Amino acid sequence: MSNEASAIIPIMTLSQLGEFGLIDLIRSIAVPENSERTRYQEVLVGIGDDATAWQTENHIQLATTDTMVQDIHFDLTITGWEELGWKALAVNLSDIAAMGGVPKYALLSLALPGELEVEDISKFTSAMVHLAREFGVALVGGNVATSPNVVITVTLIGYSDGETILRRSTASPGEQIAVTGYLGLSAAGLVMLRNKLALDNEARTMLRQAHLQPVPRVREGQILVEQGVRTAIDLSDGLLADLDHICESSTVNAKVTMEQVPVHPLLKANFSNHQELALCGGEDYELLFVADRAAIARAKQALNCPVSVIGEITKERLATRVTVVDSQGNTVPYRKGGWEHFRNGAHEARIT
Amino acid sequence: MSNEASAIIPIMTLSQLGEFGLIDLIRSIAVPENSERTRYQEVLVGIGDDATAWQTENHIQLATTDTMVQDIHFDLTITGWEELGWKALAVNLSDIAAMGGVPKYALLSLALPGELEVEDISKFTSAMVHLAREFGVALVGGNVATSPNVVITVTLIGYSDGETILRRSTASPGEQIAVTGYLGLSAAGLVMLRNKLALDNEARTMLRQAHLQPVPRVREGQILVEQGVRTAIDLSDGLLADLDHICESSTVNAKVTMEQVPVHPLLKANFSNHQELALCGGEDYELLFVADRAAIARAKQALNCPVSVIGEITKERLATRVTVVDSQGNTVPYRKGGWEHFRNGAHEARIT
Repeated sequence: MSNEASAIIPIMTLSQLGEFGLIDLIRSIAVPENSERTRYQEVLVGIGDDATAWQTENHIQLATTDTMVQDIHFDLTITGWEELGWKALAVNLSDIAAMGGVPKYALLSLALPGELEVEDISKFTSAMVHLAREFGVALVGGNVATSPNVVITVTLIGYSDGETILRRSTASPGEQIAVTGYLGLSAAGLVMLRNKLALDNEARTMLRQAHLQPVPRVREGQILVEQGVRTAIDLSDGLLADLDHICESSTVNAKVTMEQVPVHPLLKANFSNHQELALCGGEDYELLFVADRAAIARAKQALNCPVSVIGEITKERLATRVTVVDSQGNTVPYRKGGWEHFRNGAHEARIT
Repeated sequence: MSNEASAIIPIMTLSQLGEFGLIDLIRSIAVPENSERTRYQEVLVGIGDDATAWQTENHIQLATTDTMVQDIHFDLTITGWEELGWKALAVNLSDIAAMGGVPKYALLSLALPGELEVEDISKFTSAMVHLAREFGVALVGGNVATSPNVVITVTLIGYSDGETILRRSTASPGEQIAVTGYLGLSAAGLVMLRNKLALDNEARTMLRQAHLQPVPRVREGQILVEQGVRTAIDLSDGLLADLDHICESSTVNAKVTMEQVPVHPLLKANFSNHQELALCGGEDYELLFVADRAAIARAKQALNCPVSVIGEITKERLATRVTVVDSQGNTVPYRKGGWEHFRNGAHEARIT
């Protein structure tokens, strides 16, 4: 056991440590010893980005894994098995998208109660395979085990064709911050489903799909790389939390202009707290990216989806690492939220 | 959704379908459509072997994943956190060993209750990283999430240096069947731990380690490939069950001579049912391999561990696909056991 590890641990629980504290702890234990440097030389991106990346002779190889736990990440009373199969793969596709990579092979690990109906698992798998086909991914292996609750882990392996990948750690002061699509729809979808809100058909369909069947921005991530963008993350924890991840990795700060954050008209029409949903609601699976003005302009031109410039990377820190301002430049206060495990725990954390 | 899938599913539960039925179902849904053949061309081994294998320009790439669920695969009242960290990686290393491959990168997905102590997870991770280092593996990524129970998924990525890998599907009639090490120790260790059996120090240490800290036969798997062996599996479900997997994949039958199955003197001395433990007890993580007489002899010479020839592959089927005989050639009846999920469910299934 490494000495660093035992040195930094007071007696505390995971709830007190929080998700990101736990990730830091694991990283500190897994840090290579001097004798191992050569083994790690090929590793380009280790613990703490959207996916892991290492160099092979011909490619940059990418791998990511995501676990979904029943009643933490999904609720079977509002999520259909097809939607669950879709989403379990989609969130991993989104991690590969955030690296600008090409997804290729998926492994599916299922921990399931024995009393589940075979037909439901068949629907789940069929929906996953359907989405996999759409993105050129082959489901090639995995594992099944019995469990008191449903726990789904998908591992996705991919590659980058070029020499570069999108990272969290490469943002520089003066660069612009942009996002694809509209934000807050997934969190609004969760609110609608949990509270059985009676919205019109169009809103209901859009919000349900945003929350349960997000379409990962895989091609969009590749286009960002092609257009010279180097910094990106996918929006899973919420805009401000994910932008904070970029700022922390890049040792910079950020300023976001509230009015420039893309809020869909249907969200505005149906949710009075649409600003909060757009800033802090998680699971949008849109791409947040950072680049100089020229690269952002090229990306905007090349991408076939809405792109909004929402702010800029700054050197100086205001009150917080990420600051939200209105169009007059006044700071807009917001509650620190986002979707952090352990500290908040439950699903609702995503939309506070 | 594919038509085959919906055609083969009556209304039934996973318990009725069983683990291997579920794997077959997933395989039938994931089977490539004609238009996808090229995408799957690189896949050498898909769902249903110890690990997945695909061809890249320079290597055969390997990937495997295994999930361990609290109170199904481990019991925290008898398993220490260090042992759990070791074992969660060891079972994956064993899958790569069963392909004759070189393990390289590990992803760790942890679903954990918030009330766990940070120190325990630190011990868990340190033990895993310690084992990873011993086998030249880098822990490069993963995922943490909150969960009502502990669920650990490790994904291990590796490669094969040569052009060949060990498979389940290549056994031929007339070939010999051999195993490394001694069998039944892990199952005996579980019995000892669960029933608090008072054994002497030497037996206690050996059985505890066999069950909780198995040493995967990684180098041994590579030596098998070098010596011309082409067929292997690691013993996780139990000797007879795992040999049955080889027979099913290779469309052959097998005859095992009871007296040749390696039973350790300490097992014989302490467990009257040592034969049953050796035949059906799971989680030995030894290698079972099949080859012609000359390759087996070369492997035996090259391996630095006990190797026992225990039987042969036959064309004709006796009462069952795998038959156990005594030294006079008389059939020894045994209960079909092994460690199958869903159908049996609990831990005890491994040792029935």
